[in-house]
Amino acid sequence: MLQGKILVAQGGGPTAVINQSVVGIVLEARKFAGVEAVYGALHGVSGIVNEDFIDLGQETQSNLELVGATPCSGLGSTRDKPDEVYCHEIFKVLQAHEISTFFYIGGNDSSDALRILADEAKAADYALRCIHIPKTIDNDLMVNDHTPGFPSAAKFVASAFAGVNQDNRALQGVYVAVVMGRHAGFLTAASALGRRYPDDGPHLIYLPEREFDMDRFLSEVKETNDKYGRCIVAVSEGIHDSSGTPIVTKLAANVEHDAHGNVQLSGTGALADLLTDQIKEKTGIKRVRGDTFGYLQRSFLGCVSDIDQREAREVGEKGVQFAHAAGRDGTVTIHRVGNYATEYQLTQLEEVAGKTKVMSDDMIAPSGSDVTATFIDYAKPLLGSGMPEASRFQAPRVDKILV
Amino acid sequence: MLQGKILVAQGGGPTAVINQSVVGIVLEARKFAGVEAVYGALHGVSGIVNEDFIDLGQETQSNLELVGATPCSGLGSTRDKPDEVYCHEIFKVLQAHEISTFFYIGGNDSSDALRILADEAKAADYALRCIHIPKTIDNDLMVNDHTPGFPSAAKFVASAFAGVNQDNRALQGVYVAVVMGRHAGFLTAASALGRRYPDDGPHLIYLPEREFDMDRFLSEVKETNDKYGRCIVAVSEGIHDSSGTPIVTKLAANVEHDAHGNVQLSGTGALADLLTDQIKEKTGIKRVRGDTFGYLQRSFLGCVSDIDQREAREVGEKGVQFAHAAGRDGTVTIHRVGNYATEYQLTQLEEVAGKTKVMSDDMIAPSGSDVTATFIDYAKPLLGSGMPEASRFQAPRVDKILV
Repeated sequence: MLQGKILVAQGGGPTAVINQSVVGIVLEARKFAGVEAVYGALHGVSGIVNEDFIDLGQETQSNLELVGATPCSGLGSTRDKPDEVYCHEIFKVLQAHEISTFFYIGGNDSSDALRILADEAKAADYALRCIHIPKTIDNDLMVNDHTPGFPSAAKFVASAFAGVNQDNRALQGVYVAVVMGRHAGFLTAASALGRRYPDDGPHLIYLPEREFDMDRFLSEVKETNDKYGRCIVAVSEGIHDSSGTPIVTKLAANVEHDAHGNVQLSGTGALADLLTDQIKEKTGIKRVRGDTFGYLQRSFLGCVSDIDQREAREVGEKGVQFAHAAGRDGTVTIHRVGNYATEYQLTQLEEVAGKTKVMSDDMIAPSGSDVTATFIDYAKPLLGSGMPEASRFQAPRVDKILV
Repeated sequence: MLQGKILVAQGGGPTAVINQSVVGIVLEARKFAGVEAVYGALHGVSGIVNEDFIDLGQETQSNLELVGATPCSGLGSTRDKPDEVYCHEIFKVLQAHEISTFFYIGGNDSSDALRILADEAKAADYALRCIHIPKTIDNDLMVNDHTPGFPSAAKFVASAFAGVNQDNRALQGVYVAVVMGRHAGFLTAASALGRRYPDDGPHLIYLPEREFDMDRFLSEVKETNDKYGRCIVAVSEGIHDSSGTPIVTKLAANVEHDAHGNVQLSGTGALADLLTDQIKEKTGIKRVRGDTFGYLQRSFLGCVSDIDQREAREVGEKGVQFAHAAGRDGTVTIHRVGNYATEYQLTQLEEVAGKTKVMSDDMIAPSGSDVTATFIDYAKPLLGSGMPEASRFQAPRVDKILV
């Protein structure tokens, strides 16, 4: 039963709809008579140890809706991963403020932080209900059909490639764009969702689920360019060689790690530049351009999937309902039923925490450098309504006179 | 008087609305009884010498509208700049196909190509009406209040910064994004159009209109980061030192030039990486991220200003009407009347061709690293309707108990 004071926080990388989940939690929780207060912790678990709370009971419904429609963690975020000592600091604060239930919105690292916290709470005999609310543009949470944040990021990537496909048709040459995704290629694969005509790009898609071989890459780019007079390539930032070493680290002088031990991949154009330099040098193709989509993929204002907005809101609402009805810790998971509909379940934290889902083999073409219709069928409904389409002139050629 | 066969082509870098101008020309020209045919040349002037024409009289209105709403040159583009020999090749083809009027949609390089063509036509006593239709995301055409393509690109840049501002509030640190713009800083300045709260980024804006000094840059970043705990920087790709040397060329091993003699600035993340490396090294700030917005600025599908769409359509329509009524060559120019309304004029080609407009001093803050209210007032109406706004939680802090 939901009662006392509840706390909500956001962890990890922002998404376009992560605030919808806060709003879902706040609006739903305020309906329960037993709920005394709904607090928000600023900057995730670090805001708890610093006692940085705001009183979300004092938000108007109107402003909550406006923040819900705003991308990126409105409460602030953190990459901190609590250990035992950190957990005890958290308990001290939660106890002082009489928090009964903690909703942590985040990806696999945040769910793992919550799992540690839940375990430590049990060990310390501290009565704390821990509910994880899923989000990640990487779409890499186990059990879930997909995760809130991914559909909007996928719409951004699909829209971007549908646009650069037109740009590249106009000016020709090779275009390489690097897409976020450390271990899971879902977001890079979404580059295919804007294709419409048979010769539309991306013509080649390189995913972290497959080993990246530079020579094969270069020969595939050259072959495509010979065929179409142009070539568009989507590359995951997480591509790695046969030993598992990320391609980008081969270049970077200083490799940066976060608190979870992950190598920093985003926030640099190094991988795109490395690949375009190789193409120029080795294939002789002259016009070669590289982009790195960077932080716009998860934060761009105004590119959002309405399906994603609704589901991100619902996982928050369901989290509160589960906390009230189920009487146990867990993570809210999304399950697809029919085409297209979803339902939500409360799943054990351990089934999701710290684990990574990658693309299944049937979503990746045998060539290793494209996706299959299975992936397209899986991902297309997630883009929601209003995904724009690119159109072409259809007029026939005029007969030549001089030649 | 408009009669015979007319030809339309697109040159230079694509924009989100460049096809609206083609559609405006085609739909308007098809109304004139004297017009026998409306051809499109594929890939600009290069399509003329190659006799690559399509018959735009055989486009349905419905498909024209769909292509109009699609970003990037649907007819294809080119960076070719015709010399005398090239012009004679063009005349040969135009004469064979009995083309009377040529509409060239492009920026200052394309208008200069058209000027050369018009001069050579006169010298060769070839009766050819040449009309330039403006477009450029750089917004750097003389005489024009602004140019079609800029408002949509500005909306993209403003939306991107409004989003990364939320991202950076959530995870802190320094964020640098490089925006297109060789000589004119208008598009980089548009980064300020999404600011809403006093501490919203970008906090610093570096334009090619001002000399870039690395030491001053680093101290301004450090000062801002000390003040807000974070710092967002917008940088034009064209920033240069006191000698006029672009900062990016200080790093690049191979400098690439186009047919107009311009150094290639886009299609690489080198400048952002150079700046973030300097910040990390010299200020000791740990979380420093860099993005280069790249080709998405001019091609992203689904981010368009409705004002821009309408005006890009109208400059095409007006071009046809001027060609019919004025009986002379020229370039269609946009003039602001009132707030906000525009009117169109036919201006002499020489006043626009090959010239570059930059930001006026009253649009740039005395500090040299921000814009003024004059710029905001100038640019904001161009974004049109439906520009999203980012909102924040307003809830008050909860009193601390433990400290």
